[in-house]
Amino acid sequence: MKSASDRWARVVITSVEPRVQEGDWPIKRAAGETVAVLAGIIVDGHDKLSAELQVTRKGGATMTLPMTPQFNDEYTAAFVAESPGRYSYHVRAWVDRFGSWQDQFRRRKAGGAPESVLLIELLDGAKLLKEFAVNVPQAERAQLLAYANALREGNIKAALDTETLGLARKHDPQRGAVESAPVGVEVDPALAGFAAWYEFFPRSSSDVAWVHGTLDDAAARLPGIRDMGFDIVYLPPVHPVGTQFRKGKDNAPEAKPGEPGSPWAIGAPDGGHMSVHRELGGLAAFDRFVAAASDLGLQVALDIAFQCSPDHPWVKEHPEWFKKRADGTIRYAENPPKKYQDVYPFDLGCENWRTLWEALKGVFEFWMERGVFIFRVDNPHTKPLAFWEWCIGRLRAKNPELIFLAEAFTRPKTMYALARLGFNNSYTYFTWRNTKEELRGYMEELTTTPLIEFFRPNFWPSTPDILHEYLASGGRPAHIVRYVLAATLSPVYGVYGPPYEHVVCNQHPEREEYADNEKYEIRVWNWNDPGSLQPLFRRINRIRRENAALQQLRMLRFLDIQNPHMLAYYKQSGSNIIVCVVNLDPFQVQEGVMTLPLEALGLPQDTPFQMHDLLGGERYIWQDQHYTVRLDPNVMPARIYRILQRLRTEADFDYYS
Amino acid sequence: MKSASDRWARVVITSVEPRVQEGDWPIKRAAGETVAVLAGIIVDGHDKLSAELQVTRKGGATMTLPMTPQFNDEYTAAFVAESPGRYSYHVRAWVDRFGSWQDQFRRRKAGGAPESVLLIELLDGAKLLKEFAVNVPQAERAQLLAYANALREGNIKAALDTETLGLARKHDPQRGAVESAPVGVEVDPALAGFAAWYEFFPRSSSDVAWVHGTLDDAAARLPGIRDMGFDIVYLPPVHPVGTQFRKGKDNAPEAKPGEPGSPWAIGAPDGGHMSVHRELGGLAAFDRFVAAASDLGLQVALDIAFQCSPDHPWVKEHPEWFKKRADGTIRYAENPPKKYQDVYPFDLGCENWRTLWEALKGVFEFWMERGVFIFRVDNPHTKPLAFWEWCIGRLRAKNPELIFLAEAFTRPKTMYALARLGFNNSYTYFTWRNTKEELRGYMEELTTTPLIEFFRPNFWPSTPDILHEYLASGGRPAHIVRYVLAATLSPVYGVYGPPYEHVVCNQHPEREEYADNEKYEIRVWNWNDPGSLQPLFRRINRIRRENAALQQLRMLRFLDIQNPHMLAYYKQSGSNIIVCVVNLDPFQVQEGVMTLPLEALGLPQDTPFQMHDLLGGERYIWQDQHYTVRLDPNVMPARIYRILQRLRTEADFDYYS
Repeated sequence: MKSASDRWARVVITSVEPRVQEGDWPIKRAAGETVAVLAGIIVDGHDKLSAELQVTRKGGATMTLPMTPQFNDEYTAAFVAESPGRYSYHVRAWVDRFGSWQDQFRRRKAGGAPESVLLIELLDGAKLLKEFAVNVPQAERAQLLAYANALREGNIKAALDTETLGLARKHDPQRGAVESAPVGVEVDPALAGFAAWYEFFPRSSSDVAWVHGTLDDAAARLPGIRDMGFDIVYLPPVHPVGTQFRKGKDNAPEAKPGEPGSPWAIGAPDGGHMSVHRELGGLAAFDRFVAAASDLGLQVALDIAFQCSPDHPWVKEHPEWFKKRADGTIRYAENPPKKYQDVYPFDLGCENWRTLWEALKGVFEFWMERGVFIFRVDNPHTKPLAFWEWCIGRLRAKNPELIFLAEAFTRPKTMYALARLGFNNSYTYFTWRNTKEELRGYMEELTTTPLIEFFRPNFWPSTPDILHEYLASGGRPAHIVRYVLAATLSPVYGVYGPPYEHVVCNQHPEREEYADNEKYEIRVWNWNDPGSLQPLFRRINRIRRENAALQQLRMLRFLDIQNPHMLAYYKQSGSNIIVCVVNLDPFQVQEGVMTLPLEALGLPQDTPFQMHDLLGGERYIWQDQHYTVRLDPNVMPARIYRILQRLRTEADFDYYS
Repeated sequence: MKSASDRWARVVITSVEPRVQEGDWPIKRAAGETVAVLAGIIVDGHDKLSAELQVTRKGGATMTLPMTPQFNDEYTAAFVAESPGRYSYHVRAWVDRFGSWQDQFRRRKAGGAPESVLLIELLDGAKLLKEFAVNVPQAERAQLLAYANALREGNIKAALDTETLGLARKHDPQRGAVESAPVGVEVDPALAGFAAWYEFFPRSSSDVAWVHGTLDDAAARLPGIRDMGFDIVYLPPVHPVGTQFRKGKDNAPEAKPGEPGSPWAIGAPDGGHMSVHRELGGLAAFDRFVAAASDLGLQVALDIAFQCSPDHPWVKEHPEWFKKRADGTIRYAENPPKKYQDVYPFDLGCENWRTLWEALKGVFEFWMERGVFIFRVDNPHTKPLAFWEWCIGRLRAKNPELIFLAEAFTRPKTMYALARLGFNNSYTYFTWRNTKEELRGYMEELTTTPLIEFFRPNFWPSTPDILHEYLASGGRPAHIVRYVLAATLSPVYGVYGPPYEHVVCNQHPEREEYADNEKYEIRVWNWNDPGSLQPLFRRINRIRRENAALQQLRMLRFLDIQNPHMLAYYKQSGSNIIVCVVNLDPFQVQEGVMTLPLEALGLPQDTPFQMHDLLGGERYIWQDQHYTVRLDPNVMPARIYRILQRLRTEADFDYYS
């Protein structure tokens, strides 16, 4: 944005937002979201500026929007990112010469300048109009010259006319115009911005204990999942499972006969990353599963873990893709002294790297051809960032409908770099943020810092790898609390379904994860237990669908509530306002006085309004800004109020149908 | 900072600080100040990184400093900006391959790996050393190969040796190294970072009422100014004053016979911007003035106002440099309905702009040849920013000893843009920040935002153009308060001497400026009035010189004090800590309980320390963190404590000698 030494270079664009500060990465939006551009633009002296926003869709047309001046040399315009793909925008600004002239003329006249002076100034205005009439279509050229004549003849009304101004601005040659550097806008599919994920192990979907479920058994679970309101079903790896160094129950170093092994130990003589485990029903069953999901309006997300079991066909076909030790054996994964003998990592810097990178990209392409467009990528932070930038960049350039979720539980800079380079969703630290202070601090980091432009969190209360002490010790109330928090704080969230809905609290004695872990054994679940959390899932997903405030991340504000165990916040989208209050203490009743910022919420002082608890169903008439909220964890540890300015008590929505 | 698709491109530099966010402008330092660089650098997986900071002086050598890893993937190194001129720095990083290998080897050994495994790993280490030995001077090459042999022979001690590591790191071929974009560092002379300015009108320096003082009279004032501890004497324009449309007393539209006119109406038949007013003694007297200042160690700052009186020789010689109205007359300055008929602005976009720009640059060069290196630029925001960038850029590239002070009392974006493009000091909003809240907010904006990297404030309690109501109504206590604030909050400050030291409070009835304004008339001052504020100036300037904490802007923190009229803050530089407490109420005694953050100040709990009030002279022994401070505006409305951890009561400095 440096200016040049040029006699017309008077305008300087000092800032353009939004953009990603670190380097020249794109900002991100989900389809249908707005990009509100704010530019700082200055010029010497008292002249007026014209500014416009130019938005270009990659390979498509450019749209031009006028920018509106605001306070403090700032100019705004907004556009909607209609559909997935790459856009870019930039700001263009120049001195509004006729507008400046007209403004000064108006002030001269109002200040009582004598007619002799005004007549001289009118000649200057006429000169500008004549200059602007060059290279203008005949009819408008004639009109401009007619205005110029009128001014030359002393026609003050024509000089001050808005039509004169409009035509002059339209044909201003924009002398000395400057443009900001373009900012890329990566537009993701709508599901990247608002979605509920449901994870389950298809091999645990049979009704018969210890019988390996198939993808057809899993497909039978889909109507129930859809009925609960989920959008995406996410399956752990479905590929043939290795047998060498196969892990046993709860990660025992050696599997006993008949134990199924971890699905992340990918590859067996049957095939690798582009095959489906025989006991799941093979590729044909997979295709039936995707079709069944599609019929229900569900999307399938696959787990992509770029690592091989020692039995993976690629180990024999492409030994050059793996690191060797000095004795010629393939190096298994390790972080000394820890060893993972059942997993061979790829060497993405090997001599033959180009074929390897293409092969890995080919894995995504294989599943895309089978109707999968959402990928949960396992441990992306252990592969070079340049690989992901190349791979995701190539794939999304052809197919912007893709969504990549980064499972990078690592240090923040790497987590955020992966989001910048192309991942559309990211696992987060949410699981470890359980106190009021932790939740507030983390949400403020995600929503009020530059992260909001490119890092899209996907909140998971638990995963097959993580069962936090808070959930393990807090039982059902804790499970409700964390589910409500995930689903209301973040527009994108997921749940590792079966153990969560059955409130499984058995923690492994040494690790922060489930005992009797499905990663290493087949479980059988009661898919229709009326005592499960399924009704809560159904209710919350419906509330999310019917309230735009919960479908976005940006407009989140915390409310003052006088109790360290209680968290209160609101989200707003247009007139839709949702206030959530949660008791974070799973053991005790807590109550606290909450303060509602009536003015910020657009609520008139001294006028009653309705607080409709969408979770419990009660409706309250409030008027003041202070209210005591009391939450019993054994009844319902949360409220999700919708604020309604009308007071009629008949249901606006019936959540009990 | 984007990574490339390259098999070795594993390292990513995610951020580099300090830098100026908006565009590619340099950060600024005064000579002798430190640049502490903080870089975020990541790599996939568990490998270790090497990082270095490369600092290049323009046209000079490059210095390489190793960066030290800190918490959270951050790396630091610092360098001192030794002398004025342009530097640039960048960060370079690569995978520390031998260091990573050694670290893993150490962890393997500690984890109890069998010798057979360790021997295999040693072969990998040996291979690295052999690879690193290529293109290495003979002696070190032999040493590397000797280490490689030792490893190959199973020498674990050699493998873990820090000398092996040091030599390997020295010759690491730095495969896949990445470099950040260079950041410019504009190093200004030390006086740009720490200086006290004294402004006076030389024509008011005669001892005889109504007699036009000369620059020789003014030179007679210099020893007194130096004695008060000032560094820079700043003179309003010294050029011939125009007679057409000359303004009279207090900006009266017409001067009476004998009235001297405003020095900012520059130019008369005698000459223009490169001449000295005849009544001031002409160029010869000016040269004597500069020589006298130089002998005293004072620098002279000149006012550069790029505008002409109608009598300026350039109006006749270069009519093409000015804007014409349609009737052919030259357009005087105006902001309708306001008119300034005594001032013709230049048209920096005129046809002949190149000669005009060169002529204006030539004005600076003319005065530089006469020994002036500091310029206070009048209203730079009414000329194109591109002109200043070009003009200051050219001049400072040849002579980095220059200092340009921008008198841009305008909206913030323009004020800050002028600082970014090259002005070394800036007038500020300080004059209008008088309450506790205003002062705190403004200082936090200046010191804790990106402004700290390029905007260097110069604080003035009053100027010939501005006398704030706070000073006008608050009398002597208000003058003391504002002086103490200016001189302790900002390392660079100035005072419009004579009226300030005589506590002139006569405000113009309609404007926020002095009545009987020296801009339009000659005043006579008692330069040796013992009742003036000169002793305060002397004391404060001495305190500033003897306390490094007051010579910098960055390390400023506000302290909690329980009184809305009292402001408390501290500044720190190394072991030098200064605590200031000010009663902002010029009329009433105020007292408040101040809290000292003992831990942040490095003071041990429960150990007494000494608070030496450098202004009043008292010494107090404190121990607790809470103290009541009581300030009587009619005695002394401020304290400037120096914290001393030793308790002896004999004077460490004698401020009363």
